[in-house]
Amino acid sequence: MRISPLHTGGLALGVTLVIATVTPAQTPTPTATPVPGTMAAVLAAAKPADWRGLDPDDTLYLDLPAGRVVLELAPAFAPDHAANVKALVREGYFDGLSVLRVQDNYVTQWGDPDGDDEKKRREVRKAKPTLPAEFDRAISADLPFVPLSDGDLYAPEVGWTFGFPTGRDPKAGKTWLTHCYGALGSARGNAADSGGGTQLFVVIGHAPRHLDRNITVFGRVVQGMDLLSALPRGPGALGFYETPEQRVTIRAMRVAADVPASERVALEILRTDTDAFRALIEARRSRREDWFKYAVGRIELCNVPIPVRPAQNR
Amino acid sequence: MRISPLHTGGLALGVTLVIATVTPAQTPTPTATPVPGTMAAVLAAAKPADWRGLDPDDTLYLDLPAGRVVLELAPAFAPDHAANVKALVREGYFDGLSVLRVQDNYVTQWGDPDGDDEKKRREVRKAKPTLPAEFDRAISADLPFVPLSDGDLYAPEVGWTFGFPTGRDPKAGKTWLTHCYGALGSARGNAADSGGGTQLFVVIGHAPRHLDRNITVFGRVVQGMDLLSALPRGPGALGFYETPEQRVTIRAMRVAADVPASERVALEILRTDTDAFRALIEARRSRREDWFKYAVGRIELCNVPIPVRPAQNR
Repeated sequence: MRISPLHTGGLALGVTLVIATVTPAQTPTPTATPVPGTMAAVLAAAKPADWRGLDPDDTLYLDLPAGRVVLELAPAFAPDHAANVKALVREGYFDGLSVLRVQDNYVTQWGDPDGDDEKKRREVRKAKPTLPAEFDRAISADLPFVPLSDGDLYAPEVGWTFGFPTGRDPKAGKTWLTHCYGALGSARGNAADSGGGTQLFVVIGHAPRHLDRNITVFGRVVQGMDLLSALPRGPGALGFYETPEQRVTIRAMRVAADVPASERVALEILRTDTDAFRALIEARRSRREDWFKYAVGRIELCNVPIPVRPAQNR
Repeated sequence: MRISPLHTGGLALGVTLVIATVTPAQTPTPTATPVPGTMAAVLAAAKPADWRGLDPDDTLYLDLPAGRVVLELAPAFAPDHAANVKALVREGYFDGLSVLRVQDNYVTQWGDPDGDDEKKRREVRKAKPTLPAEFDRAISADLPFVPLSDGDLYAPEVGWTFGFPTGRDPKAGKTWLTHCYGALGSARGNAADSGGGTQLFVVIGHAPRHLDRNITVFGRVVQGMDLLSALPRGPGALGFYETPEQRVTIRAMRVAADVPASERVALEILRTDTDAFRALIEARRSRREDWFKYAVGRIELCNVPIPVRPAQNR
């Protein structure tokens, strides 16, 4: 029987490097010279300037009993939501609240289990309880756009702005953050202005792109996705948990800037406005790893990885 | 604060009904008259003939400690793999083996933890250890195709054949099963013919469509996805578990036909060659539920749900 390590390993070339570099505690494994034209080769050749750090003022930590989720905010797309969630975080709104809902192939959502109970729910003190929607915003010169030329089913144009996967409609003059895996949004009720950040969700399944422009997306997970995606699915309708025992308690949410520098998670993200990222896209359109037998030559926005690694000492 | 139940519920209209009907033990909740043009309305109006049962000879049960995963085989696309996996199942090959790997946003994979050890690995007795690849097959009249007209980035044409999401290339005369969420495939090494069904995987993340035509897909999960998608991610490279304690043991795999009829999971799947399914696609292209503010008017293959419900007494 020809069951070599490659028998299984080959399947996963897709996200190997991202996985391997996403955990700061993990020592990178020495690897053989990567196959030319692969993501491994592109990343091996990337220069220090191809990577960027996270702005601690636009980085949130969601601390769960099992570990820390690191979220990058996109204030350029949803300034009011980004600011309000930071205000909620800074008044301790989320501390001790819970993961409320995990719906398979859809979202993990957290907030106040008593949010519907006027007497029991947690008070919003300094932040705002709700906000006008920020589903999209005007295209403008201060939002540089790196286009993906492969096309998209849900938007006239797609690409990246400040490292976030985005859609654009030049005719309407609008741009928005897309619901790729790991997208961070603000849940709402039927009214467009009924959200504001007191209940947050992250996409944990196939990109529900039909939500684009229907809800305010204002960031994305850059580390710790498995802490949200591997949670038990809720037994109730829509994946809601039904008892306090089922819910995971949020230890704390913090703005990274409010955490001592020595306790922050030091990460770097590959810049999407670089030749290295363009080479990475090409490496993923037509896979050159030995395992692949057929190269499709195209790639979908949400299948383009945005590599994250521990910050390098320079 | 306007935190109503809709504040959270609204977000999930996407897959509500599928979730609600996928669990046989669950009594359907009486709901208000569904909004016309929604999936709920389409399903409420579907006739008994719009639904089909599962052929027990093409249905596998993967029994894990936490419950049963139901998998439908697609022998029309990969006859040798479907037959060989049934042969493996029938000789008890998988019983007592393990889930080996859970890689976030990618795959859950199971088989023999000692598969690489010639002395310790489990013997394949009657089935074949490897098979020639069945990555695609010739388009033919015996494979009726229900097209999705919205386009696709990875295939010239996409749609459904026998209820499975498929791609087609009319110029090449080929058709294949796509890697949508829940797709069931046979892992392999670098050689195209190095798989054969002794290690199986299911897609648990955003559809890795670049795997299409690179690996043999031969079925899909129709119930119990969360038993595979919510497992702890493996700490090793590529999501592999590293110790026996981390691995979930497979109690048994069975062909449904070999299980007493009274112990089978009685499910029905919405036929994809019906007006009801065409109406469902339209309902999902342009969402009419109150929650939605923007209708994109298009849908991607892997975002079209294929509803499953407990078999109805007729």
